[in-house]
Amino acid sequence: MKNQPPKKYIIDAEEAESMAKSRGLTLPQLLPSLVKSAQNLAHPPISNFAVGVVGLASDGRIFLGGNIEFPGLPLHHTIHGEQFFITNLAAHGGGSKLLYVAVSATPCGHCRQFFQELRGISETQIAIADQENPNYKSFPSILPNAFGPYDLLDLETPLILEKHNNQLSLEDENLIIKNENSVNGYFDLINKNEESLKKEALEAARGSHAPYSGCPSGLALMDCEGNVYKGSYMESAAYNPSMMPVQAALVAYMVAGGVGYERIVAAVLVEKEAVVVR
Amino acid sequence: MKNQPPKKYIIDAEEAESMAKSRGLTLPQLLPSLVKSAQNLAHPPISNFAVGVVGLASDGRIFLGGNIEFPGLPLHHTIHGEQFFITNLAAHGGGSKLLYVAVSATPCGHCRQFFQELRGISETQIAIADQENPNYKSFPSILPNAFGPYDLLDLETPLILEKHNNQLSLEDENLIIKNENSVNGYFDLINKNEESLKKEALEAARGSHAPYSGCPSGLALMDCEGNVYKGSYMESAAYNPSMMPVQAALVAYMVAGGVGYERIVAAVLVEKEAVVVR
Ligand SMILES: [Zn+2]
Ligand SMILES: [Zn+2]
Repeated sequence: MKNQPPKKYIIDAEEAESMAKSRGLTLPQLLPSLVKSAQNLAHPPISNFAVGVVGLASDGRIFLGGNIEFPGLPLHHTIHGEQFFITNLAAHGGGSKLLYVAVSATPCGHCRQFFQELRGISETQIAIADQENPNYKSFPSILPNAFGPYDLLDLETPLILEKHNNQLSLEDENLIIKNENSVNGYFDLINKNEESLKKEALEAARGSHAPYSGCPSGLALMDCEGNVYKGSYMESAAYNPSMMPVQAALVAYMVAGGVGYERIVAAVLVEKEAVVVR
Repeated sequence: MKNQPPKKYIIDAEEAESMAKSRGLTLPQLLPSLVKSAQNLAHPPISNFAVGVVGLASDGRIFLGGNIEFPGLPLHHTIHGEQFFITNLAAHGGGSKLLYVAVSATPCGHCRQFFQELRGISETQIAIADQENPNYKSFPSILPNAFGPYDLLDLETPLILEKHNNQLSLEDENLIIKNENSVNGYFDLINKNEESLKKEALEAARGSHAPYSGCPSGLALMDCEGNVYKGSYMESAAYNPSMMPVQAALVAYMVAGGVGYERIVAAVLVEKEAVVVR
């Protein structure tokens, strides 16, 4: 894997335009043709069922994601391709809307549910690319009469792609900071980056989408070269499809080009004490 | 809670018939009128959003379920009302089909997905009881173009309501047996029931629905009076909506009239060693 070219998880607006132009396609038509590249981002060692997801944001950029499975962990730790995609979009496409999305196979119900955290999802168009001539249809046609954020929150509460600013500080008495280090030879590197890890984990917790439990959290990972990657906990109105902060941080690691979990040598989790969920 | 009458999770066929008759309703019409009783089975201390689910099996019995939330645990441990119902049906209604089901609120996508583990779900009729004049509609109308077992399994593999007989024995070298005991004063009781706990956990693992990972498991709980309750691990084709064996055993405990987690004093888990998921 290490000799392959760097994988592409985000295509900027200009490049997207020129890709579409050179193929004689509109931007929405381009998405299904990129689903195979998204499937190459998947790591499904349990199912060997690679899922690829490609979406066009309102800022003109294209975001990609694939599914990630973790041997040795319970199945509910699986990151679906759609969840990877939404996490990528939330981390890098904040403030934009999802206009079009193409998926390699019909999405499972768990993912159709997680998409409900995007404001305006009922206007998003979705295409399933394994069908001949994939046609876009509106999202509610695949999850009619959905249960979602509006069943539990007021309209002003920020949703997953919107700015969150949870009031947390490292001086809070009820803040818990947990360190997990694999110190084999990395003692100095971890020591040197400890403050930066804490700061990034706090930043991730501030950006956490946790309106249902009120328990924001964030996690920062460090690789063996001292690079730090952060992930925000993101809740679903239906609870179970929520993304844990460690999952979101692994998505950040991969989007930044990280390959191989063994290169991750430290993690810091920031969460509130005495919370209803963790 | 302890002074309330015992809660009802299963209504036998004769009683169901006479309830319907006395109210001048057909059996399918009876279900929405029982949704409130099912909501009373819910324990949602985080959301305070009680979900009730009532279904008619092909053997004439009615099964009920409510949602269960666990403060202090990650949200993905939540048991949705629909999952409780399906677990109840799988444990006690084996071999039957689900003809009609009524729910107190529109089901989330995660639950619509878990229902796919029932063979013939596309013929099941579902009604959402919070609407005036709840009307039944076919299940595919709420999860069109579903991803499900048939995308991964052959048609002969038993699904969730069908007989499973995973070849496992306590003599298997690759079997792991884990004990978890809270021995405060229950040492003798636990000792006396150890073999029975192991046997029931094994029985649950044999009945486990784990066709996607090939890793069946089962768990048996014992309460402070020495009663044993077993639960089978049940997988979803979409992985994350799977029911862990401890969740299934808690459902069994409640269906049998158990109230209060503090009365549970021992647990035994049986699973295979060196498995891809646990
Ligand atoms: Zn999915
Ligand atoms: Zn649900």
